Order: sequence, then structure tokens, then C-alpha cells
Amino acid sequence: MSNQQVTIQFPNGEQKRFAKGVTLTEIAKSISPSLAKKSIAGSVNTTTTDLTRPILEDAEISLYEASSKEGLKVLRHSTAHLLAQAVKRLYPDAKFGVGPVIENGFYYDIEMSHVLVPEDLQTLEREMKKIANENYAVVRKEVSREEAGNIFAHDHLKLELLEAIPTEELVTVYEQGGFVDLCRGPHVPSTNKLQHFKLMNISGAYWRGDKNNQMLQRIYGVAFATKEDLQDYFVYLEEAEKRNHRKLGKELQLFMFSEEAPGMPFYLANGQIIRNELEIFLRNLQAIYDYKEVRTPLMMNQRLWEQSGHWQHYKENMYFTQVDEQKFALKPMNCPGHMLIYKNDLHSYRDLPIRMAEFGQVHRHEFSGALNGLLRVRTFCQDDAHIFVTPAQIEDEIALALQIIDHVYKVFGFEYEVELSTRPEDYMGELDLWNQAEEALENVLNRLGIAYKINAADGAFYGPKIDIHIRDAINRSHQCATIQLDFQLPEKFDLTYVNEENEKVRPVVIHRAVFGSIDRFLGILIEHFGGAFPLWLAPRQVQVIGVSEAHTDYIEKVKAQLRQANIRVDIDKRNEKLGRKIRDAQMQKTPYILVIGDQEQQNETVTVRAFKQDGLNTLSIEAFIKQIQLEILNKQLPS
Amino acid sequence: MSNQQVTIQFPNGEQKRFAKGVTLTEIAKSISPSLAKKSIAGSVNTTTTDLTRPILEDAEISLYEASSKEGLKVLRHSTAHLLAQAVKRLYPDAKFGVGPVIENGFYYDIEMSHVLVPEDLQTLEREMKKIANENYAVVRKEVSREEAGNIFAHDHLKLELLEAIPTEELVTVYEQGGFVDLCRGPHVPSTNKLQHFKLMNISGAYWRGDKNNQMLQRIYGVAFATKEDLQDYFVYLEEAEKRNHRKLGKELQLFMFSEEAPGMPFYLANGQIIRNELEIFLRNLQAIYDYKEVRTPLMMNQRLWEQSGHWQHYKENMYFTQVDEQKFALKPMNCPGHMLIYKNDLHSYRDLPIRMAEFGQVHRHEFSGALNGLLRVRTFCQDDAHIFVTPAQIEDEIALALQIIDHVYKVFGFEYEVELSTRPEDYMGELDLWNQAEEALENVLNRLGIAYKINAADGAFYGPKIDIHIRDAINRSHQCATIQLDFQLPEKFDLTYVNEENEKVRPVVIHRAVFGSIDRFLGILIEHFGGAFPLWLAPRQVQVIGVSEAHTDYIEKVKAQLRQANIRVDIDKRNEKLGRKIRDAQMQKTPYILVIGDQEQQNETVTVRAFKQDGLNTLSIEAFIKQIQLEILNKQLPS
Repeated sequence: MSNQQVTIQFPNGEQKRFAKGVTLTEIAKSISPSLAKKSIAGSVNTTTTDLTRPILEDAEISLYEASSKEGLKVLRHSTAHLLAQAVKRLYPDAKFGVGPVIENGFYYDIEMSHVLVPEDLQTLEREMKKIANENYAVVRKEVSREEAGNIFAHDHLKLELLEAIPTEELVTVYEQGGFVDLCRGPHVPSTNKLQHFKLMNISGAYWRGDKNNQMLQRIYGVAFATKEDLQDYFVYLEEAEKRNHRKLGKELQLFMFSEEAPGMPFYLANGQIIRNELEIFLRNLQAIYDYKEVRTPLMMNQRLWEQSGHWQHYKENMYFTQVDEQKFALKPMNCPGHMLIYKNDLHSYRDLPIRMAEFGQVHRHEFSGALNGLLRVRTFCQDDAHIFVTPAQIEDEIALALQIIDHVYKVFGFEYEVELSTRPEDYMGELDLWNQAEEALENVLNRLGIAYKINAADGAFYGPKIDIHIRDAINRSHQCATIQLDFQLPEKFDLTYVNEENEKVRPVVIHRAVFGSIDRFLGILIEHFGGAFPLWLAPRQVQVIGVSEAHTDYIEKVKAQLRQANIRVDIDKRNEKLGRKIRDAQMQKTPYILVIGDQEQQNETVTVRAFKQDGLNTLSIEAFIKQIQLEILNKQLPS
Repeated sequence: MSNQQVTIQFPNGEQKRFAKGVTLTEIAKSISPSLAKKSIAGSVNTTTTDLTRPILEDAEISLYEASSKEGLKVLRHSTAHLLAQAVKRLYPDAKFGVGPVIENGFYYDIEMSHVLVPEDLQTLEREMKKIANENYAVVRKEVSREEAGNIFAHDHLKLELLEAIPTEELVTVYEQGGFVDLCRGPHVPSTNKLQHFKLMNISGAYWRGDKNNQMLQRIYGVAFATKEDLQDYFVYLEEAEKRNHRKLGKELQLFMFSEEAPGMPFYLANGQIIRNELEIFLRNLQAIYDYKEVRTPLMMNQRLWEQSGHWQHYKENMYFTQVDEQKFALKPMNCPGHMLIYKNDLHSYRDLPIRMAEFGQVHRHEFSGALNGLLRVRTFCQDDAHIFVTPAQIEDEIALALQIIDHVYKVFGFEYEVELSTRPEDYMGELDLWNQAEEALENVLNRLGIAYKINAADGAFYGPKIDIHIRDAINRSHQCATIQLDFQLPEKFDLTYVNEENEKVRPVVIHRAVFGSIDRFLGILIEHFGGAFPLWLAPRQVQVIGVSEAHTDYIEKVKAQLRQANIRVDIDKRNEKLGRKIRDAQMQKTPYILVIGDQEQQNETVTVRAFKQDGLNTLSIEAFIKQIQLEILNKQLPS
């Protein structure tokens, strides 16, 4: 009788026996009907599975609600099928490419004679809702290749996908209300589980991502577990759109792009002020930590890039030019230049650590489709540093680097998460050194009480690394700072120092960046602050507005006094109404607006209107200057 | 009888009659024997002429002493002939190319079987002295082309030069002691006038400067009017060599070069400190003058360079690369980028002037033979600005630009000379605008009381310009700042603004640079200050040295206090003698050395040794800090 039963182990370790062939739905029901209702998929021995699939062996199982990470994946995948079914109903000649899950939703690539317009999305959504409520069971079928070939005989796209399935692999299709799709699954058990979705937009997409292939029509959609989640997503989108750095970049005149140099930002005066402030901030901080700033050429001979390994591993992303009949490359990284500087001198252990920093402009090719404002560019300025250390100094130097990073991120109000990536399978160098280095990194993190996640075997081939992910004001995560140990560059460039025993030995190199890319960091800051920068970064810190022309002399005087105190101040001399002038300054997110009328002029005071704060405050010019100088000095965050 | 006489007018306007055919020597003798003795050439009706040439018509004349500008030219030219004569005596198979006058001397290109070594120069000099003292008359002869062909039948180089003389031109040769050279002259009357010369070095040179031609041997020499002038020249050479920026660049660890990037400087920490200080200095100054700093990409599409005209006029000096199958060029100038920024917005006359500045890294190809440390590089950072103005604003804006330039140059102690270059023959644009612009430039210079030289017809084709030549500590002249009006770029980029009458009209662009190239300016500064920079620029401002180990704690404390005050300070902890430490700090031209012994430690004082100053000075740390902070603030020049 026992071979007619299977032992099912639950996530909490409990075990229970069921009839062989039991499904996850039945198991869920046996616990509680509400659990069965909430579940949309599950896992059997760690493989995500349909609820309806019979279990034939002893297994560990989990059940996934729609709102779980795994549940959402299944939900979104099933919504893609729902979309395909609706398309097929409305446009019977439709043929289908791929329909994968992406962040927040899915897309489906379609070939058909009807050319979609945005209005079609509503019609399709209505059809999807209808099908969902018709509540078809979603049924998995294992088929032979011949059967599959017959099913998709009229869809050459699916036939191509079918051919691409390795011969040893099982072929499955999913059917719902007569609509069949070639698919590995898993899926929700029935279409009525799919309720909270929205079709977002249409675009063109090459079949299989190859621009030599035909262009298909792609429909993007999002799907969530609940109505609230879907609504929250649209609130988030709206908030993200308000903060969109490309939009704010235009409105606040921070930067521009030109078709003459795609992916290469032009900083306008306002943006350049912020860039300069960021650079000065870090430069001064680095001086305190005894970094030495250098500046290396933007292009160097190809043989140098061969020596460094960039030629072999990175040339697809590099730009080349010709100098005196020799091939030169624009630097995609600053490392080789810094290695040459290190080699320009003899070094003793007494000279180490050497902390070499550069605000280095690098060029890296990106596909034009991947470009995204300042967040993904083809040239950016790295706040790069290479620290040359003895193995014994690794720990202290990492601690100092983490200290700088912590200081910088706190100034912007960023929370951050730390990840430690360890020795990968294809590691190079001595195992001993790796172990020592990984231990050093762990020691430092523990010593400083920094919580971290280990990404096992995810380090670079040349050494382990610490990556830092910041979390912005709307809870998005961005990897910015990095600290990487490198045992390979010192080998490749034959770097040495003379140790205490008078022997020539190799230093270890630590790559380190805090902002990462100043350009990208600026993009993140724009979105993080929604364009309302802390005073020390604000391009225009104060706008002075006179109530009437009678106050022109006095506002010029106020401006001159603020300038004298190194405050970035403008006056609005336009022939506009006071309200309009105030509104325009607020649109520009100016931190302080000073409104000057008879009272102020008479008493030599200013009336201060702080950005996004209600009250007004009248004080002497001197008092106002002292107040904001302190705010700048402290790099105070906006309240 | 009167047609047997000629009227000679002297520079002072006096006139005197002489027999027709009189020579300048005879005229000089008639005034005073000493004048005749001192003169080595003269001019007849503004044409420089041999002293011995008969004057057949009424004429204005001048007499040139050897030390005059014109006299030196003749002297040096004759010394080149003297060298050729000596070469011919020692190496009879010698054939001669060209032997022109250059700064301070001359060279002669020679073809012969003997390969010259440096020791040969002494032998040649002795032979030249001998010939000089044999005192041959130098005799001019007019010859027919046939006669010349016969004279130089065995010198194919001279025959080629002969052929190159235009047929309508007279052919002349000069003969001295049997040696004949093809030459326009004029020359000294006799070889004994040539006494103060020195042969400097040998190099190879392609015949007629064409690398497809044969290589000749070139001998360089210098020649002066007096023994003292020759000696002074060698003192100057020694001084220049001491100040050589490439030598000091190594010694003071300011910058380096690598064969991986010829002509592209690597700034070491010390050099980068100075670069940053220069940039900060100008950035702050420009902020006061309402400049807006921008930052534009380093490469842009070729079509932009076609639009700007760089492609047509400058492509030989540009570096190219490929982006997405389009040809891009690395920017050799910042102008086109700034034009794109201007065009990014609509402008009204109320917005003008717009002063757009950039510290822009440009790349311009130079032949490797032309490279010279920081003075001639392939990439440099321009302190560039473009000022967009209405025609009426030209005058005021030029005045402001001159004010900045004056301020900056005074800070470094540079005297300077101003040159105004006016409309060239191939000018573009409206004559009216040119006249107005030239008048504006002259008005400004006059208004500001600035003395200037006019270079007639030497302006750029796109507008007149003002060039400023600074004079360094050893009296060399360098062109650095420039102010150029441009009527063409606004046309090429279709720039407009809306004027008071609501019409779209063209702005005028003013190109302006103060340092010119920060890199080259730094090279000039290194030589100007001989590496002993003013305190505000000095990479290490203070070196603290303890008399013994007992003072280690106190010198650390002094260092910390100085750092706190933003002073760039180091301590010398090496296990070396005090004298050695002081000497090393002086070798590094450290402005202040603090020597700390028991006394200083006890009294919390420091004993100060200022660079190149004798006395010592003991004062409290605080007093010392205040003193040097003031020196830095005032950008005081070294005393």
C-alpha cells in the first residue's frame, strides 16, 4: 500500500502522507480552503510547478501566493498568455513570438496584419478581462515534437521556437479555452486568477532581437496580485515620472543631449555647478585621507590595453583612433594609466599605501537603445582610485575606503546595502592570497559592524569585491560604490616594491569608487531629490524678488551682499507680477526666495520663503547669510 | 655736373651731396672713421644693402651697427658663409644646401662624405677664426644664369637652388678668399668683422625639408656683435636649462610622459595640485564676471566638424574614431559644442551677453618631432570661453576680458604686450561690421590706456583679434591669452537672438582664453618661477623636520595643526641627518621649512626657514599659520 502513497514535507518541516498523484491544489485544500484559494502555484522539490500537476514521489513542497516573488512571476507569465489569447480572438491571423516576464509585468511579440495603435490596448484589455472571467482552466499537456509541429503548423514563429528546444527536453503546451501556447510553464490553474493588470504600450521588436530579422509588434503590460498593488504601481510611476532626471534635467537646465554625440552629456551651467560641487566635496575628503590626485591621458597605445587585458576582454566596448599610424584606444578605465604612474618610480614598503585618485573621463560604447539620460551614457567621469598596498595593509585600507563611502552617502541621506562577492570558479592567482583577502574583507565588515550579504563565487576573476547598493527616496536600488581587490594587474604590469627583507615583491591593488560615475550619480541625485537639491548643491541658492521697481536698488544691494558671501544668487528683473515671479522660482525649486518690499527696504531685512515650507520669516541680511552659510557648510539635507 | 652727384638723406633728415657711385662705407667715413668702423651694413631706400655697393641715385640711407636688429641679421648670415668656407677648406667634396639666419644665429645644410662628429665643430671654429683674421673682402657679383651654372657646376644642391630663382630676378654671388656662394646678400664688407660666434650642434635635415629627399648634415651656430653678448647668451642658456620645465618636472615630480601616449602628459600628484589651483583660481574669477561654466563631450559627429569648417581646414590635426558606424572626431576646439548649447534655447537681447566657459580637454595632432614637454603637446586643457554679444556690447565685453587677463597675469608677475590684428585680405563677412569691430577694439585699448602694436591685415578670416604676449622671468615671450571676434560661426550655426525690434538677428561671438592651454601655461610657469612656485601654487607648502626622534610627537602635532588650516604640509620621518633633510626640502624648492628642536617643542613655536632667504625666524604655530594663510590668500609672489 505504501507505494500508492507519497510523503509530502512542508516548509516548516512537517510531513504528511497523500495518495500518489495528489496535486498541490488538493494538498492546499486539505490544509484550508482559503490557502487553496490564495495559492496560484507552488514548488515541488524546489522546482516551481503548476498547482494541478500530480505528485508521483515523496517531495518537499511550497505553495506560492500571488503576492510572493515566485507567485508574481507565474501570475505575470499567465497574463502574457491571457493577452495572446485576446489578441488571437481579435486578430485571428496573429502569430506569436516570445512572451516573457519582465520587471513588474510581461510583454508579447506578435506578427499580424493589423497594425496596433494605442487605442487597441483598451479593447484588448476588455477582451482579456472577459476571458479571465470566462474562467477557463489552464491545462498543461506533454506532447511529442510531431504533435507540437501539427498544433503550430500555421505559426512559423512558434515552429522556430519549437526547433530551438533541445531534443532531450520534454515539449509542453498550455491550453485555455481553446487557445494553445508552446510553453514550459508553470501557470495559474485558471484564468480568473488574472485580474489586476494593465497594458502599457506598444513598440517594435526584431524577431529574436536580431536586426536582420523581421520586425514584430510588441505589447508591454504589468500585472500585480491585488488591486492596491496595481494602484500603488501607478502612483509610483507618477512619482518616478515627476522625478525623471531627463525631464528635470530639461526643466532645471542641468544638461542636454545632441544627436551629434548620442549618449554623451552636455552639462549646462546649472548641471556643471552640481558636478563641480560633487568633485570638490570628494577631492577635499580624499585629501584628508591622504589620496594623491593625478590626471592621465584620455587615449593610449593599443599595446597597453593588450597588456592590461582590456583588449582581450573589453574591446567591443572601446573606441579606437590612430596616432602616427599606431592604433590607440580611448580609455574605458583609468587603471592602466595609474599602473604606468606607479611604475615611473621605485617603491619601498615605507611608501605604501599609495592612494592614487583621478576624476577620469572614460568612454565605453553602449548600444544606442540602451542609453538612458545620465544613467546609461557612453562617456562619464569616474571618481576612480587605485590604492597600492602590502597584503598586510588590505584590511585597514578597506576600512578607510568604507569610511569615506559611509560619510559620502550619509551626506545625501542614502541608506545602503553591502554585498561581498567571493572567489569565482575561474579565479586567477594564488588560493592562499584569495583566502587571506576574503578573510580580510569579512573581518573589516564585521569589525565595523556592517551587515552584508555574501554573493558566493561572484567576485571578479582578479579578486574579491565589496559592492554597495544605495536606496533612493522612492526605494529604488542603485549600485554605485565598489571596492575591489586585484591580484592580477600587479602581475600584468610587473609592479613591485622592496619589502622589509629587501626583496622585490608585488603590491596588491585596490580599485575603489565612491560615486562610481559622477554623471550617473548626478542622475540618481536628481531623481532622489526630485530636483530640489540640498542648498550646497542647488545651482541657484537664492532668488531675490522685489515687490516693485522702487526696490530695484535694494535688491541689487542684497544680491551683492550674498555674492560677497559666495552665495549663488539671482534677481528677477523681469516685468512680471510678483506672484508669477515667486511661482517661477518655485518651479525652479529654488531653496530660498527673498521677497523685498517697502518694509524690508526700510529695515534692511529680507523676508524668506523656504522651498516647500509654509511660513515666512523676516530677518536681517546678515542673519540670513549666516543661517544659510551654516546650512551649506553642514551640507544639510532639505527638510 | 649735377648728374654726376647724388643727394643722400640721413635718418635725421639732413641731406648731403656725394659723387655718383659713392658707397655707404665712404659716406660713413665722411662723417667719422669710428662710424665707418662700427657699421657692417646699411640700407638704401629702405632696402638692406652691402656697405660697398655704389649708390647711383638720390637716396635715403641708414647705417647698421653689428648690434642692431638688422646688423645682427647680416652678421649671422655672413657667419654662415664663413662656416661654409671653413667646411669647404676642410672637406673639399662638400656641397651646400641652404644657410639661413635663425634666432640667435644660423645653420648651414651640407652634403659630404665625411660624417661630422661633435669634435669636428671645434676644428671648424678654429678654421673660421683663421679665415676671419685672414680678412678677405666679401665681394658681391651680379652674374648671368649661365655664369652661375658654371660656377656651381659641381654642386647639384646649389644648381637646384639656382633653378628655383624666378627668371625675372637678378642672380648674385658673394665671393670671399676664393670661396663663392650663391646668395642675395647683403653681407659684411670683410671677414674680420666676424669674431663672436660659436658652433652649437649637428643634426640631420632633409634637403628642402621633404622627407622623400636625401638627408643632409646641418650645423647650427650662434653669432653676436660683441664678446659680452656671446657670453651673456651662454649665461642665458645655462639659466634656461636650470629652469627647463622638463627637467624640473621630473625633479619636482610634477608630470611624466610615457611612450604609450607620446605628447599626452600624465600629471603626478604635485603637478595636479598646481593644475587644480590654476583652475580654481580662474573658475572663481570667472564666477565674479558672470561666466557660466559648461562641459561638452570630447568627441562629436564628423558632420558637426564639417558644419563648423574644422573638417575642411583642420582635419590633418584631428583624431577620428567610429561610433555606430559613423565617423566621429575628438574635439580640437570647444567652439562647436558651445554653439550647440547656445542653440538649445531661444535667446532675447535681454539674455545677452552670455559668457560660456569651459575647461575643455582638446586633442590636436602634432608631429612627434615638434613635441616639447608641456609646451607642445597633443592634448591640453583650454580655459576656453565664448561670449555671445550684440554688436553694441562688443566694446564692453572686450574691456571685461582684458580686465580678467590683466588681473591673472599680474598675479604671476608677468609683463605683457598687446597686439591687435586687423582685417586680412581674405576676410569674410561685411566690411561695415569689420570696421565697427576694429574700431571697437581700438577704442577699448585706448580707453584702458593699453599700449598696443597693430598687425595690419593679420587677423583671422572670421574677425579681428587681440593677442597678448607675456614676458617671463628670463625675458622670453609667449603668446597665451587671445580675444577674437567671430562673425562666421554665428552664420555657420545659424545663431540668432530676438532684438528690441522683435527681429531675429545674429549675435557676435567672442572667443577668449586667458591661460590659453593650462598645460602649456603650467610649463611656462615652471620655467618662469624656476620651480620655486608662489606659496598658493606650491605642491608642498611646508616641510616639518624634527631635530631628533624626541620631537616626533610635536612635529606630528604641528603637521595636524597646519593641515587643519588647509596648508599642504609634510613631515620628513626618514632616518637621515638634519642637514640632509633640510637640503632635500630645499632641492624640492619647498617654500617653508620648519625645524623643530627642544626649544620649539618647549615653547610651542616653530623656527621658519623661507626658501632662498637667509635668516631664521621663530614664532608660534598660530602666528606662522596666519602669516602664510595671508600669503596664500594674497597669492603673493616669491620674494
